[in-house]
Amino acid sequence: MRWALEELGLPYEQRIIGQEDQQTAEYRRLQPFGQVPALEEDGLVMFESGAIVMHLAERSDVLMPEDVAGRERTKSWMFAALNSIEPHVVNLTNIDLFHANEEWAKLRRAGAEKAVMKRLVDLSNWLDGRDYLEGRFTAGDLLMTSVLRILRHTDVIGTLPVLDAYKRRCEARPAFQKALADHMALFAGTAPAKV
Amino acid sequence: MRWALEELGLPYEQRIIGQEDQQTAEYRRLQPFGQVPALEEDGLVMFESGAIVMHLAERSDVLMPEDVAGRERTKSWMFAALNSIEPHVVNLTNIDLFHANEEWAKLRRAGAEKAVMKRLVDLSNWLDGRDYLEGRFTAGDLLMTSVLRILRHTDVIGTLPVLDAYKRRCEARPAFQKALADHMALFAGTAPAKV
Repeated sequence: MRWALEELGLPYEQRIIGQEDQQTAEYRRLQPFGQVPALEEDGLVMFESGAIVMHLAERSDVLMPEDVAGRERTKSWMFAALNSIEPHVVNLTNIDLFHANEEWAKLRRAGAEKAVMKRLVDLSNWLDGRDYLEGRFTAGDLLMTSVLRILRHTDVIGTLPVLDAYKRRCEARPAFQKALADHMALFAGTAPAKV
Repeated sequence: MRWALEELGLPYEQRIIGQEDQQTAEYRRLQPFGQVPALEEDGLVMFESGAIVMHLAERSDVLMPEDVAGRERTKSWMFAALNSIEPHVVNLTNIDLFHANEEWAKLRRAGAEKAVMKRLVDLSNWLDGRDYLEGRFTAGDLLMTSVLRILRHTDVIGTLPVLDAYKRRCEARPAFQKALADHMALFAGTAPAKV
């Protein structure tokens, strides 16, 4: 969401919530599952990163081509990132980061990695000979890169050179660098990065 | 996708693929991961159920309100169904249907069910006092019901009366009944159902 806002050059104010806020009735009215992020904009309340990025992307051609085919292909890739890739990525990451010492996780890890690799190989095959998923950078690449980054505690992406180059190509964008720096500054408790 | 087509009263032709087609370069050009469904419409090729349902829903107010807030709330729920609920639902279902006899699955099942229940309780709390996710039936309800149905081999939904009633309310729609009958007829190798 932050990356999309930077790509579009839209000003925004961030409101940080704590774990205790996730359970409150007030926050649940904004986000029924107590997750982040949520977006408030002129009385409109949205939730789910995918929906928010799509909402932001639709206001110009920066992240979404304006022709019907370009728009619908972008949306196909947005859903693919979040629904065909991310669940497998999250399953492997959850094992590594939250369950590494549990017996089921030790027994399951190889299978979980195999499931991720299967989808990543398909994705890499698609990207072979392409700089982006569809000819130019779109909100589909923004979400796909965000999903691939979840695996940065592993060397899985590094084993697929086409995919690795694609991820680096997207991460090199100034808007990504700005969003990442601001995000990290938030956790460091320091001021937002200037670009 | 079929349910959405029936809600909208749109004519369509179905092309059935076999497992052998999922690997072909020809099909991969339509669907990069070899999954179903894909949509071909006047030269446009789309994939991912969520993207296809959204594409269909956007052409009238039958599945998506025409005001900005109604549309964006609908999209938030579409992503919530596929990204905040479905991955947990699929993890439990995969254990039950594909890995039931594996040691890791036996050790993990209770945790996987707990993860599903957490999200379903949140969803049930949101639906308490509401007939639909947002005042009227939308593409958000269509996808959410489709996701909840994945659990029909369990009695998980039955333990949450509000959610169970919601699911039955959505399933009672004639368009769902027609789509389901046509889908089952396909597997039975008989003619499509007439409504």
